[in-house]
Amino acid sequence: MKVANLVGQRFKERPADCVIDSHALMVRGGFMKYVGNGIYSEFPALRRVTAKIENIIRKEMDAVDGQEVLFPVVMPASLWEESGRYESVGNELVRFKDRSGSNHVLGMTHEEAAVHLVREYAQSYTKYPFMIYQIQRKFRDEARPRAGMIRVREFTMKDAYSFHTSQEDLDKYYEVCFQAYNRIFQKAGVPEVITVKSDSGMMGGSVSHEYMLLTPVGEDSIVICDECAYRSNMEAAENQVINNAGTAEELECIETPDCKTIEAVCAFLESDVETSCKAVVYQKNSDDKFVVAFVRGDYEVNETKLRNIVGEEIHTAVITEEDCLAAGYIGPYNFPEEAEFYLDVSLKGIASIVAGANKEGYHYKGLNLERDLESASYADIAKVKEGGICPCCGKPSLAIKRGIEVGNIFQLGTKYTKSMDMQYTDENGKNHYPVMGCYGIGVGRLAASICEAHHDEYGPVWPISIAPWEVQVCCLRSDDEETRKTADSLYNSLQNDGIEVIYDDRKVRPGEMFSDADLIGAPIRVIASPRNLKEGAVEITTRDKSVKELVPVEKAEEFIKDLRFKLFAEIDSHVESYK
Amino acid sequence: MKVANLVGQRFKERPADCVIDSHALMVRGGFMKYVGNGIYSEFPALRRVTAKIENIIRKEMDAVDGQEVLFPVVMPASLWEESGRYESVGNELVRFKDRSGSNHVLGMTHEEAAVHLVREYAQSYTKYPFMIYQIQRKFRDEARPRAGMIRVREFTMKDAYSFHTSQEDLDKYYEVCFQAYNRIFQKAGVPEVITVKSDSGMMGGSVSHEYMLLTPVGEDSIVICDECAYRSNMEAAENQVINNAGTAEELECIETPDCKTIEAVCAFLESDVETSCKAVVYQKNSDDKFVVAFVRGDYEVNETKLRNIVGEEIHTAVITEEDCLAAGYIGPYNFPEEAEFYLDVSLKGIASIVAGANKEGYHYKGLNLERDLESASYADIAKVKEGGICPCCGKPSLAIKRGIEVGNIFQLGTKYTKSMDMQYTDENGKNHYPVMGCYGIGVGRLAASICEAHHDEYGPVWPISIAPWEVQVCCLRSDDEETRKTADSLYNSLQNDGIEVIYDDRKVRPGEMFSDADLIGAPIRVIASPRNLKEGAVEITTRDKSVKELVPVEKAEEFIKDLRFKLFAEIDSHVESYK
Repeated sequence: MKVANLVGQRFKERPADCVIDSHALMVRGGFMKYVGNGIYSEFPALRRVTAKIENIIRKEMDAVDGQEVLFPVVMPASLWEESGRYESVGNELVRFKDRSGSNHVLGMTHEEAAVHLVREYAQSYTKYPFMIYQIQRKFRDEARPRAGMIRVREFTMKDAYSFHTSQEDLDKYYEVCFQAYNRIFQKAGVPEVITVKSDSGMMGGSVSHEYMLLTPVGEDSIVICDECAYRSNMEAAENQVINNAGTAEELECIETPDCKTIEAVCAFLESDVETSCKAVVYQKNSDDKFVVAFVRGDYEVNETKLRNIVGEEIHTAVITEEDCLAAGYIGPYNFPEEAEFYLDVSLKGIASIVAGANKEGYHYKGLNLERDLESASYADIAKVKEGGICPCCGKPSLAIKRGIEVGNIFQLGTKYTKSMDMQYTDENGKNHYPVMGCYGIGVGRLAASICEAHHDEYGPVWPISIAPWEVQVCCLRSDDEETRKTADSLYNSLQNDGIEVIYDDRKVRPGEMFSDADLIGAPIRVIASPRNLKEGAVEITTRDKSVKELVPVEKAEEFIKDLRFKLFAEIDSHVESYK
Repeated sequence: MKVANLVGQRFKERPADCVIDSHALMVRGGFMKYVGNGIYSEFPALRRVTAKIENIIRKEMDAVDGQEVLFPVVMPASLWEESGRYESVGNELVRFKDRSGSNHVLGMTHEEAAVHLVREYAQSYTKYPFMIYQIQRKFRDEARPRAGMIRVREFTMKDAYSFHTSQEDLDKYYEVCFQAYNRIFQKAGVPEVITVKSDSGMMGGSVSHEYMLLTPVGEDSIVICDECAYRSNMEAAENQVINNAGTAEELECIETPDCKTIEAVCAFLESDVETSCKAVVYQKNSDDKFVVAFVRGDYEVNETKLRNIVGEEIHTAVITEEDCLAAGYIGPYNFPEEAEFYLDVSLKGIASIVAGANKEGYHYKGLNLERDLESASYADIAKVKEGGICPCCGKPSLAIKRGIEVGNIFQLGTKYTKSMDMQYTDENGKNHYPVMGCYGIGVGRLAASICEAHHDEYGPVWPISIAPWEVQVCCLRSDDEETRKTADSLYNSLQNDGIEVIYDDRKVRPGEMFSDADLIGAPIRVIASPRNLKEGAVEITTRDKSVKELVPVEKAEEFIKDLRFKLFAEIDSHVESYK
């Protein structure tokens, strides 16, 4: 392929609507084009990247006995009614009527389709275990698409579904997939992807993991222990707090005018925020009943944890004057009966707490939860803080980083097989519901994440395994006969060796040629110029600047092949450790 | 892959809802599963077939300098408003609102997306010509999905779009694609696919071709000359008629009570149907104005031809008593001014015609169109008949066959570049609209069509180039040690040679094993059984029954490799002729 013919324009100016670097570079490099909110087209350069990622994934899925299938994008609503998700999923699920008036949905995930495909096939225990997967487009009507291909509405995803006759068998296969996923990210050139335990919420499953590419622009918070191997998604990270008990005092109700925030009341009462109690108020989606989470003043509520404890969907509360709660003055003592509350573990063991008095303009001092409440039980509701206690090694060594979720694996249990009545008969003629695992990777998001993790100010620095081309040949003066001949010949002979080459023989200034090569991001670059050819050499560099050498023309091909081999070997060396 | 592990069940009973054989066999063979009206999932066996077809297409598109891209399935309505198709396309285009209330469509074709992707890129003549293509899911809300994967609502399609600075350049490239398409069908193992000129209707383009797989169950009528190379879609086939003039008579209005059909009036008047004039009545979609097509009594109207002549959309008329037309008695003489009519060439040169008198219960006899009408001009409106005159060689040798359209190529002209204002600047700084070609193949439909064209009563007979597996090894008695060892060893060694093998080592009766093998349809079959092994041999057959040999075990691997090579060579020999 010649740069002159490559469909997709490159340009210098950073597009105003690009917040993160990878998005800007992928637009500037002619990789993608905005079509609509969270909807993009892929130019040929990106399609080559995504195709390579798809093939890496496909190979690893096949290696763990996955069988590729294809589910439809459009499904009749009836299929989603079977699982109950037609009702329960919010408006990220696109629902529409076809010409006959029948309800349909756009697939945002395919658990229902997977169960539907195999429930007649897998009626005997002898068929288990098995795994099916597809690489297919999905549409999820995200409220806030962002960051280019990181969070979109339409995307290509590999989604896999495994079926088992026992939890033990799922556990075993889950571990196999866990390692297959590690190999995928290694092969895609991002060995820095880490796995974290994640919250599987009300999915019914117990175990789940997310694969995170650490980057400051990630939208997920990850808790990592600096002292041990503990890693967790913020939602799943247990928050441990050891309080200094302090001295117990008498319970006292005090007027605290205009002290509606924890900071204000602490300042007014000259008390420490670490002995204060903060109220965060939600309402149940089902009946709007108030749910109050009490946390120590310096902690924040983690809504996912709270949601799991409450056991149903909640939303941030709107409190009016008619309600039972006195906004700004809510506390666990004398709490109104119409509402319910949860105490976070961060409040445990404090002898004397400042808390709202459930009365406009008043707070309690000296509240001792164990002494003053009828029964005080604590739950883990708050977000872990930097420097928090590691639930694994017990040291105060938790760090909080940001990452992009590039894959996830879930144990689904029998949520879908039960609701959709998929059963198998065991050796003794007894019927059971199989247990399921599911395993997802977003192809476009992975491409964009790799670009985010591997770029400099000039463009992407693609790992060779997923680069649109492995080598870029730059002919600096195509009007000079010897230079052109040398470059042409290298282009042709490298291609004949099965190497993927993009060739720039345009009559443009070296500056433009190099900045375009930086934007395309091929890992190996060969520069033929009259100056170097005077010394009988071409310049060979790597996009990451680790190699920059003048190589005699007659040795160039061999040098490039060796370099290419080395770059692939480096990637493989990471993969080895997961075999 | 072992049959024991292959996801997808096979069964004997022909499903009641399958009208054509390929559909029944692909359901019975565990290839596909019904999800909803015109919506299917692909089991692993079919996904292997479609993946191979996709790769054959991809290779040929790359060979004609196509660049693979990816357009979204979901597009904002605004994009389709630019081309005018958001309004003009009927309800086969799915329109829906997203969560924010914005209108969106599901892509049923991607001309708009293609122009959108490249209109900034291709602003200079130096960028031309180029071609982009994608292999992507589409949704077309067909009124009547039928015949399994032949006519569905959701399907995988390769659609390509080329852009040119002149009609000559498009013509040249169109011919290149024409040949690439021929190669694709040859490689997919259906050399019997023929090309026919097709109607490009009001698409704006002039030239278009369809690729037809001839089969009695096809839904398209194709006109083929038995004497020359003429081939055409029914819609595009010119109908030539040479009439015996006969003797002119006086024009006479005759009472013809209850003669509302051409047959009735001819019987009543004892006249020949070949000198009668039949009226077929339509209305314009725009204003419901009546449009009457007059054809000779023994011809049928081709609505596509008529639509092209009228120049706008029409529908079958509903005539009430208040209307200007006397249903059953409509004729071209004394035709009401409020309506318009067209005379078919089949009426030309007849001296004396029987036709309706535009008056309830009356017909004319002796009508001579040239003599009696103010001006009689004729158009080609009727369908060609079996034995009709070939417009190419002039012989009465037209045959009418049925086929499935498996691909099409169109010259689009500037329809989309003009409406979407895509322009380029030529050498002299002048702006022009590029001309476009488009080129489509339905992947699933091709798979199903090949199955329809290549099957017997027991199952598909897949061509080796797209077969789910190339070889099926059947171990007839896996409990017999020698038999199992032989079969295992063949399975392993063939796989190590890079041959795609499916292995049946289940403990089932030979009948079930063979009927399953027939349903899977691998072109080469190897049967290891104790009986054959007594003679030191295995049986090697082809699915099409052309080969059936006992081959010594030690020569089996070589024999299979040779056979495989021969089967591929046969396919390649067809391809050669299109290079």
